[in-house]
Amino acid sequence: MSTQHSEAIWHRINNKTKPLGSLGQLEALAHQLALIHSQSKPEAVERIDIKTPTAVVFAGDHGIAEEGVSIAPSAVTQQMVLNFLAGGAAINCFCRANDIALKVVDCGILCPVDQQRDDFIIQRLGERTNNLANEAAMSMAQVNDGIAFGRRVVQQLTEQGSNLLMFGEMGIGNTSSAAAILAAISQRPVETCVGLGTGISQEQLEKKITLIAKGVERCVGQDVHTILSHVGGFEIVQMVGAFLECAEKKTPVLVDGFIATAAAYAAYQINPDCRALMIFAHKSHEAGHQYLLQELDATPLLDLSLRLGEGTGAALAVPLIRAAAEFYNNMASFEEAGVEVE
Amino acid sequence: MSTQHSEAIWHRINNKTKPLGSLGQLEALAHQLALIHSQSKPEAVERIDIKTPTAVVFAGDHGIAEEGVSIAPSAVTQQMVLNFLAGGAAINCFCRANDIALKVVDCGILCPVDQQRDDFIIQRLGERTNNLANEAAMSMAQVNDGIAFGRRVVQQLTEQGSNLLMFGEMGIGNTSSAAAILAAISQRPVETCVGLGTGISQEQLEKKITLIAKGVERCVGQDVHTILSHVGGFEIVQMVGAFLECAEKKTPVLVDGFIATAAAYAAYQINPDCRALMIFAHKSHEAGHQYLLQELDATPLLDLSLRLGEGTGAALAVPLIRAAAEFYNNMASFEEAGVEVE
Repeated sequence: MSTQHSEAIWHRINNKTKPLGSLGQLEALAHQLALIHSQSKPEAVERIDIKTPTAVVFAGDHGIAEEGVSIAPSAVTQQMVLNFLAGGAAINCFCRANDIALKVVDCGILCPVDQQRDDFIIQRLGERTNNLANEAAMSMAQVNDGIAFGRRVVQQLTEQGSNLLMFGEMGIGNTSSAAAILAAISQRPVETCVGLGTGISQEQLEKKITLIAKGVERCVGQDVHTILSHVGGFEIVQMVGAFLECAEKKTPVLVDGFIATAAAYAAYQINPDCRALMIFAHKSHEAGHQYLLQELDATPLLDLSLRLGEGTGAALAVPLIRAAAEFYNNMASFEEAGVEVE
Repeated sequence: MSTQHSEAIWHRINNKTKPLGSLGQLEALAHQLALIHSQSKPEAVERIDIKTPTAVVFAGDHGIAEEGVSIAPSAVTQQMVLNFLAGGAAINCFCRANDIALKVVDCGILCPVDQQRDDFIIQRLGERTNNLANEAAMSMAQVNDGIAFGRRVVQQLTEQGSNLLMFGEMGIGNTSSAAAILAAISQRPVETCVGLGTGISQEQLEKKITLIAKGVERCVGQDVHTILSHVGGFEIVQMVGAFLECAEKKTPVLVDGFIATAAAYAAYQINPDCRALMIFAHKSHEAGHQYLLQELDATPLLDLSLRLGEGTGAALAVPLIRAAAEFYNNMASFEEAGVEVE
């Protein structure tokens, strides 16, 4: 990114009619967006135009769910996919409220859904992953296919004109996979990376830690792709590919909660250029999420005690993006408004 | 408020297709809104309809500004009012981005603005308050007139069909008045209530504390109206009236940052029923704001390091209100969606 553009953008922001820095995180957000939009341009842009913000919910099932480490059985993943397609889930509500397009991707859920429609993308890597406690969750071929599938979604959406994306997920058991990815890559103790998910008991938590630790042990000294094959999920590897492609397409992307951030972290390991495109939407109370945010040097926009996933935190942050763009584009400078500066 | 309605509303929220409590603060927000809308109805409402959300910016000047305790001179209050009317300020941008109507009220600014227009309400209590360090900022008659003026604004807006309001302010020197109100009512030490405003120096801060303490000394043992006459501001007393009227009209109101919250706190002392209508939008880093939020048992929705005022924090929180309403109105129940519950 250009230092010259960066300075020009800060100059523009600092001359708006407000005390220096008084719009806090929205200023950093406007700066990030303007810098992304200014790439490969001779001058820093004077407008940030947000076009067709689109949420993508990646869904997949997890072999580890058979161990009873979640509050619901794997069948609920499909039931929730049907709920997304019927417009009845929280992510549908927040997309409607905030004028966001929504796509759902079957990355490999236990019970497939037989519907052909524009907002439902079927790119299954299997019917669910293997139980990561006992064996590799998927093959290296599935990891590579999954990354390619995720990239393709971003290619399609950006070709269709979206210039702001956000990724969410649905998959019973996927906090286990996210915690394992975090522990394996960061080499933090497993027990510090695992949390209560959407609300399991203390007993389930201890079992969850033990099972995840078995998967993480196999990852020692391995590269990120191999770690993903050992402990990843079908929806997670597709999200990794999608984040990687955002860097290619220079497309800003809102990162949702714990699971999406684990995928973002894996993508960042593969290509650190990803980080500049990421906007962190929401701070989850899941313990591992705090570590992921530290690793990524990220300060999320919202902290509303959400623990739902689906991309809900990201969808709720979209109005802040629009507000940052609007003040960058249309707020008066001191000179324009005739306001005295010291 | 009805306990029966409250339980019916929680039942509805808890049966939505999500883990219990997983929408965090948005659930409490939906509950509050539904409870307000259910008042005087036989059954709890099944829909929350948000109509014409309206931001009101109350502007006034302060005698204490002549002491140099702010980053800008009093003339800037008028310049910013002109900026509001021209559509160039941050609050204009956030209202445009979030489809919020905006009204500006001249409560008594040093240099009046000669414009007649529907979105500009002129109800001046004077040209600026007296210097609160030396004498009462205003008379008791001005306090009472100001409260009546503020009430009238809410009466007009609700008659015109708004059912969600938010109050912001503009007034060079008004963090001094807000800090003094907090210290006088709560009897906390003055120095803990005073902060850097929009960005003064350490030397200015010490002077600000000394001056405010002189005003607060005169308030010992006095009632809230008398405290407002000693250390209030014209825009602050009008906001107090506006908050009081929201309780009469059963109209939910977003409370912005430090100064608006000081007015909300004063209103709450006069009529504790105000509290049920208040939605706290934004946590400012101004020290006194934390105390005010504690006193009001409030958890704000946003924490974006804003320190601008104008109602900007409140305007940024409006999409969260709409998202809460949308999920309350249209999110599927487990039964409707055919999702298994344990």
